[in-house]
Amino acid sequence: MSLSPNAALLDKLRAHHPLVQCITNSVVPNFTANVLLAIGAAPAMTDIVGESGSFARVASGLLVNLGTPTPEQREAMEEAVIAANDAATPWVLDPVAIGFLPIRTRLAQQLAPQNPFAVRGNASEILALAGEGAGGKGVESVDSTDAAAPAAIALAQRLRTVVAVSGPEDLITDGQRIIRVGNGDELLTKVTGGGCALGALIAAFAAVRGDYAPVEAVTAAHCVYDIAAEKAAAQAAGPGSFAVSLIDALSTLTAADITTAEKIREEKVQA
Amino acid sequence: MSLSPNAALLDKLRAHHPLVQCITNSVVPNFTANVLLAIGAAPAMTDIVGESGSFARVASGLLVNLGTPTPEQREAMEEAVIAANDAATPWVLDPVAIGFLPIRTRLAQQLAPQNPFAVRGNASEILALAGEGAGGKGVESVDSTDAAAPAAIALAQRLRTVVAVSGPEDLITDGQRIIRVGNGDELLTKVTGGGCALGALIAAFAAVRGDYAPVEAVTAAHCVYDIAAEKAAAQAAGPGSFAVSLIDALSTLTAADITTAEKIREEKVQA
Amino acid sequence: MSLSPNAALLDKLRAHHPLVQCITNSVVPNFTANVLLAIGAAPAMTDIVGESGSFARVASGLLVNLGTPTPEQREAMEEAVIAANDAATPWVLDPVAIGFLPIRTRLAQQLAPQNPFAVRGNASEILALAGEGAGGKGVESVDSTDAAAPAAIALAQRLRTVVAVSGPEDLITDGQRIIRVGNGDELLTKVTGGGCALGALIAAFAAVRGDYAPVEAVTAAHCVYDIAAEKAAAQAAGPGSFAVSLIDALSTLTAADITTAEKIREEKVQA
Repeated sequence: MSLSPNAALLDKLRAHHPLVQCITNSVVPNFTANVLLAIGAAPAMTDIVGESGSFARVASGLLVNLGTPTPEQREAMEEAVIAANDAATPWVLDPVAIGFLPIRTRLAQQLAPQNPFAVRGNASEILALAGEGAGGKGVESVDSTDAAAPAAIALAQRLRTVVAVSGPEDLITDGQRIIRVGNGDELLTKVTGGGCALGALIAAFAAVRGDYAPVEAVTAAHCVYDIAAEKAAAQAAGPGSFAVSLIDALSTLTAADITTAEKIREEKVQA
Repeated sequence: MSLSPNAALLDKLRAHHPLVQCITNSVVPNFTANVLLAIGAAPAMTDIVGESGSFARVASGLLVNLGTPTPEQREAMEEAVIAANDAATPWVLDPVAIGFLPIRTRLAQQLAPQNPFAVRGNASEILALAGEGAGGKGVESVDSTDAAAPAAIALAQRLRTVVAVSGPEDLITDGQRIIRVGNGDELLTKVTGGGCALGALIAAFAAVRGDYAPVEAVTAAHCVYDIAAEKAAAQAAGPGSFAVSLIDALSTLTAADITTAEKIREEKVQA
Repeated sequence: MSLSPNAALLDKLRAHHPLVQCITNSVVPNFTANVLLAIGAAPAMTDIVGESGSFARVASGLLVNLGTPTPEQREAMEEAVIAANDAATPWVLDPVAIGFLPIRTRLAQQLAPQNPFAVRGNASEILALAGEGAGGKGVESVDSTDAAAPAAIALAQRLRTVVAVSGPEDLITDGQRIIRVGNGDELLTKVTGGGCALGALIAAFAAVRGDYAPVEAVTAAHCVYDIAAEKAAAQAAGPGSFAVSLIDALSTLTAADITTAEKIREEKVQA
């Protein structure tokens, strides 16, 4: 069996063991770090002013997650993004719960034009970043993935980046190609940080993409994460055991598992 | 079988999916959010200055937990409590480890008169808030629930709120009624944040109480949490697997389970 | 069977229930607190300015971990270390990821001479603190334990403290004696905070050492933790279930288990 691009990228990630810096919210650092370790990456939560930029220069990838943006973190994010761009470190923006909340919404608008490798969020967050919605209910989306598709495409074209919308079916676009990932499990929405950890995984795949297109690296992150979720859900008794099994599944998934299980659909954006 | 008030409130919570804002300590946000998700609420840990008030206006309930009160959080708490009161969002005060430590003790004394829906803590914390004790040993109580009963009743009367004292048997009072919940398991004291997550659950039940008395909403939170703990303890091999099973149990408990398992005693305060 | 010193110290820890204050990074407080609770200690993450010193005076032991040192934490660490020394509270320094990152490296150099009970880290961190290396790759070591042995011994002699180097085989030295612990499991490196929690455990054992030498208390922490890891690994399906089983194992391990399973080698430093 020949490996799919998603499967090949998983093998590359494990071979390269990328160092992923995360400036993330106070709820999820532990889960995020364990997801990165399980998949074979090296996490580092370096998020203080005076160190975040130095680290972003040597990191393989960077996540900037706006979940609980303290003043210290906001300044550290600016510092890290400038350094990441200077050192060609790919960085991922996760505009958590923007729309209604003023500080993170302004911050997202300020960071989004600074050349992120990818922007990920739920439908409400992507709509809000595109200026077309009021945002969701806290971290939960009140809009469907399909409703956010035109905004995601327009945003990808405008920012020249990859935009990923999480939902029952994930949508990933670079403004030209639209890839939908049909894997996953609803239990992912019952574990806090389910989406936040995916942002870190995108940074890890971005770091090892080589000749694969950015949209393919982002797709691989979703695909691997969602298939691990399916495997975990099959043996979970609820969201507690699901989260534990998800970490186990990420560490034991093989490239062959990915090739067999992936549900990918692709189309071109209509001109 | 007709449902008990505790069981009926669990069904209401799941139907209404309340949005619970938590300004809580750095040890427990992940566990607290997972407890809220498991029971069917939507967590949001919005705790920065400039956003905590905006969020408190739209949240269904708010938890203010003093476990690791940074200067940023202290200011965010003030902002959130004022907004919550203005918008009639019920808020819960958890005065973690007050008594000996000066900053949180002053903060608790300042927040307690600002119309909380409920105050929860262990016996030592409630005694300290009532001005009758020196507080416990860190987060652990050195006093018994019964020893704190008179202080809890007096505090509830003075603040016109509900006061809940956690212990082997929980005591909940609004200054007129005293309800004791005999459910629970000692393993809850071996999981960090066992009490902190209960504070968030109280805010969730407060949000959906409808015509039930405040003291009944607080009782329902204790009762549901304690029965989930009993279910989890039955299959745990230690505190690690207990914490995982507790999340699973919160997500699978039914109203009928509550009605069957609850151990509630009520008495009137002697005039 | 007579108990080994490691086993006897485990029994002492459970009998004394030491109160361990942790000023630690934002990734690991929950896991660290659960490790302490599981072994029988009482955790308290009191890390704010104005309280950290008061608490260090009454705590049984103190951990200072430099993983994500915010300005608030840096000031709280200074306050706590001064108070700990004044009150004879043993404190442990974990210089996470020092070497390349400027703020934590300066902070470690400033704290290390202030009479820590022990310093723990991986080989790269200990080399960096000794001024002989550039530090590792984030939190991961790029140097072997043996390569760090001379630096560890010299550092222990210079600082008059115990230095512990974590690795496939752990090395612990007070500058005169060298003790190697051959227990453990590689899965410990796949759980975030695996090393950080060990620092807290060292503080717990330091608190109850009585007439045992400091180097023996530090060894006991490593030995107990590593044997719990072996027990957990035997039934884990990956790093997720391993972390859960590790907490369970810490709570159920007996002194007899330790005496049977420990793999300790000791030598003298050559004059």
